Amino acid sequence: MHASCQTGPTLPRFTSGVLRIDLTVTHSSSSALAALGEFGLISRIAAGVFSHDNVMTGIGDDAAVTALSAGMQLLSSTDMLLEDVHFRRLWHDPYRLGRKSLAVSISDIAAMGGIPRWALLSLAIPSALPLDFVDDFIRGFLAMAAESQVTLIGGDTCSSRSGMIVSVTAMGEQLPARIVRRSGAAPDDDIWVTGTLGDAALGLKLLESGETVSEELLTRLLDPNPRVSVALALAEAGLATAMIDVSDGILADYGHIAEQSGVGGCIRLDALPLSSAFRRYTADFPAIPYQLALSGGEDYELCFTSLRTDRGKIGDCVKKCGIAVTRIGIVTSSPGVTDVTTDGTPYSTQSKGFNHFT
Amino acid sequence: MHASCQTGPTLPRFTSGVLRIDLTVTHSSSSALAALGEFGLISRIAAGVFSHDNVMTGIGDDAAVTALSAGMQLLSSTDMLLEDVHFRRLWHDPYRLGRKSLAVSISDIAAMGGIPRWALLSLAIPSALPLDFVDDFIRGFLAMAAESQVTLIGGDTCSSRSGMIVSVTAMGEQLPARIVRRSGAAPDDDIWVTGTLGDAALGLKLLESGETVSEELLTRLLDPNPRVSVALALAEAGLATAMIDVSDGILADYGHIAEQSGVGGCIRLDALPLSSAFRRYTADFPAIPYQLALSGGEDYELCFTSLRTDRGKIGDCVKKCGIAVTRIGIVTSSPGVTDVTTDGTPYSTQSKGFNHFT
Repeated sequence: MHASCQTGPTLPRFTSGVLRIDLTVTHSSSSALAALGEFGLISRIAAGVFSHDNVMTGIGDDAAVTALSAGMQLLSSTDMLLEDVHFRRLWHDPYRLGRKSLAVSISDIAAMGGIPRWALLSLAIPSALPLDFVDDFIRGFLAMAAESQVTLIGGDTCSSRSGMIVSVTAMGEQLPARIVRRSGAAPDDDIWVTGTLGDAALGLKLLESGETVSEELLTRLLDPNPRVSVALALAEAGLATAMIDVSDGILADYGHIAEQSGVGGCIRLDALPLSSAFRRYTADFPAIPYQLALSGGEDYELCFTSLRTDRGKIGDCVKKCGIAVTRIGIVTSSPGVTDVTTDGTPYSTQSKGFNHFT
Repeated sequence: MHASCQTGPTLPRFTSGVLRIDLTVTHSSSSALAALGEFGLISRIAAGVFSHDNVMTGIGDDAAVTALSAGMQLLSSTDMLLEDVHFRRLWHDPYRLGRKSLAVSISDIAAMGGIPRWALLSLAIPSALPLDFVDDFIRGFLAMAAESQVTLIGGDTCSSRSGMIVSVTAMGEQLPARIVRRSGAAPDDDIWVTGTLGDAALGLKLLESGETVSEELLTRLLDPNPRVSVALALAEAGLATAMIDVSDGILADYGHIAEQSGVGGCIRLDALPLSSAFRRYTADFPAIPYQLALSGGEDYELCFTSLRTDRGKIGDCVKKCGIAVTRIGIVTSSPGVTDVTTDGTPYSTQSKGFNHFT
């Protein structure tokens, strides 16, 4: 705990192991959070924690102690979400923001074929933030944790002098042979994607324009659902040669597979999976669907490659997961180049400014 | 990566696995960081990473993959440091800030008896921050990592609209039987502490008063040295019944041991280890030494308890580590009460306002 540079008075602090609460308020603050104090906030968080016998020591010591399953390796990933950079309180209700804060890190674990297990949550809270907002955020975070069988094992909490800051580390595990990296794609593999692309980006575009947004698009933006079951099914069946989660748009993210596999790729525009809500909204703007579907962010779908000879097995493998998968192109042998074709007419995405990886 | 709410133009992004860089600058910015871009920053970070064969996949995929040693359990802890809350750029030079950002989390792993192994680093950087500051921060972080045999395996980086934000997750491992928790203290155990107490708090007090601060006190405040070797020696010898790192002052932190062990404690004021620099500065203010040594923050020493019958073994055990240990009191059977005595005269710290855990 590093409260030494704070100029306001410091509330009694409670160092609850890795979940450390340090709420500092200024003299003029009448924040309900300050009144609740660290004990209250910790109780609220700890009360909803999903427990598991792989957690030896959770919240309440210097570090959490957990046990990996026999033969498994550790997967870990971290994400930071800043108010007015990654989210706006105007648009992101706290419950779904809590869910999303964990979901985006779980998505990274899933993209390696990992089984999500544990999370650490750090929160910096403006003293004027309504207590309800914090409560709802925590409820959302813990709901996503419970749905994903993830245990919150610790964290760090302090006051923020600007906006709310969320930092989440997700950890998971998997047998070494089942872990799927970005580097395993080979020429002639198929390129697949789960779900639909561009919905979150379209939802954001509409919000920014002040237009009405359907609940379907809003949900994709505000409450993404990490594709854990599909990822695990593929990893367990050994069907994915490479995999990544689509957070920066399929072009950029497939580009990482291409780069790390030393291959290229050809993605067919007309094969991109677009939701009916997406098609409805963008019917009048033919150029928009592809731009948003190719380069819009925050889809949190999976992009993976697979042997052509396994094409028939993919559908069967993911059937039980309730998420569609779509074959959108093939891996080519030209390193670093992702061409997009419509009706067989190739054009370079780089010249169109779609390609984020230059 | 969650760049969707940013209003400025987004630089080309590079999703380097868990080390994800997303520097967004406003139109008016002429930041050297923006010119360097994500590739440059990643290269600078990755170039200095200490590697180890327990890292299967480090920076550059959706999640990092690491392997625990046979029979060991995972220890994990996270800390967030915010500019103008936990540090001030005026006082904290970037190199030592980088070192400290990792040191405070390593200290938590050590306090469980863990062997520090891996770290994730999330950085939010104001666009106007000089590139040199970031470079020096990273150099410091990686120097502490190398000294501690810790590998930086990933992270997340984005732009901040207010101050610099640092979030670090440290991970370590240890055999289950060697892990030391807060909950193992029993009545009549000795209470020990490493090094000296109050130096960092005194250094801060002097800085805040605009007074000259000796390099010795400054180092304790700005560049704390996690007591990994002492912690490991105690854990391996099985000599510590409970342990915690002293970050909020010995009273508060021993209080956590007392609370979780269901015991009390009696700490002798005249036994508290004070550095010569500390004694020199505070000679004219008899009350100050004890206040700062009892309740000043950021010592990053270890407080541990040990059987009285092992008293003689403690010195031998830690001799090779080059850090003194001092016996400062005994564990009592009165739950939740930590009395402090001078010359046998007991008084309650709670009535003196020393006690942070109410």
